[in-house]
Amino acid sequence: MTRTAEQRLLLGPGPSNAHPRVLAAMARPLMGHLDPAFLALLDDVQSGLRRLFATRNELTLPLSGTGSAGMEACLCNLLEPGDRIVVGVAGVFGQRMCEVASRLGAKVTPVTTEMGTVLRPEAMSEAITRVRPRVVAFVHAETSTGARQPVEEIAQAARDAGALVVLDCVTSLGGLPVEIDRWGIDAAYSGTQKCLSCPPGLSPATFSPRAVERARTRATKVSSWYFDINLLAGYFGGERVYHHTAPITAIYGLHEGLALIEEEGLEQRIKRHAEAAAALVEGLAEFGMEPLVAEQHRLPMLTAVRLPEHLHGAPEADLRRRLLDRYGVEVGGGLGALAGRIWRIGLMGENARLTNVESLLCALRHEWPERD
Amino acid sequence: MTRTAEQRLLLGPGPSNAHPRVLAAMARPLMGHLDPAFLALLDDVQSGLRRLFATRNELTLPLSGTGSAGMEACLCNLLEPGDRIVVGVAGVFGQRMCEVASRLGAKVTPVTTEMGTVLRPEAMSEAITRVRPRVVAFVHAETSTGARQPVEEIAQAARDAGALVVLDCVTSLGGLPVEIDRWGIDAAYSGTQKCLSCPPGLSPATFSPRAVERARTRATKVSSWYFDINLLAGYFGGERVYHHTAPITAIYGLHEGLALIEEEGLEQRIKRHAEAAAALVEGLAEFGMEPLVAEQHRLPMLTAVRLPEHLHGAPEADLRRRLLDRYGVEVGGGLGALAGRIWRIGLMGENARLTNVESLLCALRHEWPERD
Repeated sequence: MTRTAEQRLLLGPGPSNAHPRVLAAMARPLMGHLDPAFLALLDDVQSGLRRLFATRNELTLPLSGTGSAGMEACLCNLLEPGDRIVVGVAGVFGQRMCEVASRLGAKVTPVTTEMGTVLRPEAMSEAITRVRPRVVAFVHAETSTGARQPVEEIAQAARDAGALVVLDCVTSLGGLPVEIDRWGIDAAYSGTQKCLSCPPGLSPATFSPRAVERARTRATKVSSWYFDINLLAGYFGGERVYHHTAPITAIYGLHEGLALIEEEGLEQRIKRHAEAAAALVEGLAEFGMEPLVAEQHRLPMLTAVRLPEHLHGAPEADLRRRLLDRYGVEVGGGLGALAGRIWRIGLMGENARLTNVESLLCALRHEWPERD
Repeated sequence: MTRTAEQRLLLGPGPSNAHPRVLAAMARPLMGHLDPAFLALLDDVQSGLRRLFATRNELTLPLSGTGSAGMEACLCNLLEPGDRIVVGVAGVFGQRMCEVASRLGAKVTPVTTEMGTVLRPEAMSEAITRVRPRVVAFVHAETSTGARQPVEEIAQAARDAGALVVLDCVTSLGGLPVEIDRWGIDAAYSGTQKCLSCPPGLSPATFSPRAVERARTRATKVSSWYFDINLLAGYFGGERVYHHTAPITAIYGLHEGLALIEEEGLEQRIKRHAEAAAALVEGLAEFGMEPLVAEQHRLPMLTAVRLPEHLHGAPEADLRRRLLDRYGVEVGGGLGALAGRIWRIGLMGENARLTNVESLLCALRHEWPERD
């Protein structure tokens, strides 16, 4: 049952295991970033991302950085110094949005909810009405707690107030429905290392015509040259003008990852995530681990569970280390205020399968420490 | 002789072909970014980069973006709004430095030289003395012209004036000596897709203790959360605290690319680049193509050649397209003012071999259009 360091079963909050076909695609020889054959493949990737985001946004592209780069790219294009932003904070990644926006010179109004709970649309709506922000931003699937925020009501309130809406889809894309156009989202970003079953390194992102127009007409230049969508549109738009050298190999991988999703069908994939999560929650009850998040708000691809008290602190870290060393199974610890008290267990993309749930439960049965 | 779209011989300004061992390494299964086995591999990568940069800088790391991200990361950490910077501009990438610095709110003094020539140390020195800048920045190997800037005198003048020195080593690292500590450079960045024979996607970078101290004591936060070295040091320093998810697969590739350099020996690798470049220049003379840059300033890994007048404009683009379609050989066109009038031919990393020079010359003999 022992796995070597390179046969990990990655059941943490990401990265998840990349599909073997994705890894094989990434081993293909390079083409140049202006090669017509590569640009055709990039066209496919951009079309595939549009389907996955359920959007007709022309500017839908793989940003050359990880999910956090996507967060920065969305916020830095839409915010100018002095702009007001309302951020829904339901965990660490909502907090990160506040920090990123603040560094860009924006006036940040956080609307905070306790970790493990979800944003209340009426609280967001009240803040939006009061602040009249340029941008409203929040996280769809909060990776630090496993909670799924209600998108439609918050986005509607933001649109009604004339604000642009930024949605973090890092953990949700490919495992939950994401409907950018129907929800009225103006900028959204994800990461390749969660439900897309690719390695980390790219941030699929999409910008609505309103977002593109906002970036075009802002009074100040975007502080980041690397992430300025006015420049990125030159390469990722129709003209294919050199901006920076695209990460060819990572884009090969994403191309294959998107093909796998289309072969399976997004609906079936979403169903598979839900089934695996249900089996996980049921199995963990045996160890007294209860989900952090109320059932109706739980994410399927990431389950946060409260640990029994005798495991808080060092014992939970020891147990995670034994699972990794002896079984090659990685699970994630808590972040922020929940560190040492919860686990975060991911069943993402390719990994959302009952067999992986069984592997984890089996390892736990062997290693679970009895209360002293 | 025909190559498929995926058997390109990449003799442009980058990407160059990735070594097959690098591609094989990238196909290995993922580990988590906090997995002790992965962190040991990352330690190796950071040590290898220190050797390659010839530095003892603790903060030497692969940034999670391409070479242009490295440029942005170095400048955004060292510059605050209102700071003065002197930038040596010998081509497009020097211009890009000005643009990046200006977006960060810095007061930019460019010291410009004609494309194809190199920076005059006395002109840089005069500007440094006059402006008393916080930062002096320039490009070691200017990828838009194939010219190698004199580093030591300029860096010395900057240090004498108490300025921090930023050096772009995107094209030079791994093909020319780069001596960060001996030259007194405070921040330098490269890209993986040139002389390191890895795919694009990472920017190896190094920051001196002076640069780290500057970032620590600045009055304003770095505008970019993603590139803030105060935060990056938490993960890429000793503590390995999560900041963003490292691009695991790309780091596997860089690990293998660095191993290949150590096996060959940097001195031998540099010699190989010089020999290949000499053969290229000799071979191109047959077609009346003369180097743009005077011999003593020419880069070995990237040769810019003037095209005969009858090829200026559309005919040179046609010829490049025929080389690509019929022979799978990619060469680069000119950038900026030199577009349509020069070619840029790269013999980088693994590609710096006489056999590749021969492949190009052979294709040219078949396809070279006679003057009407």
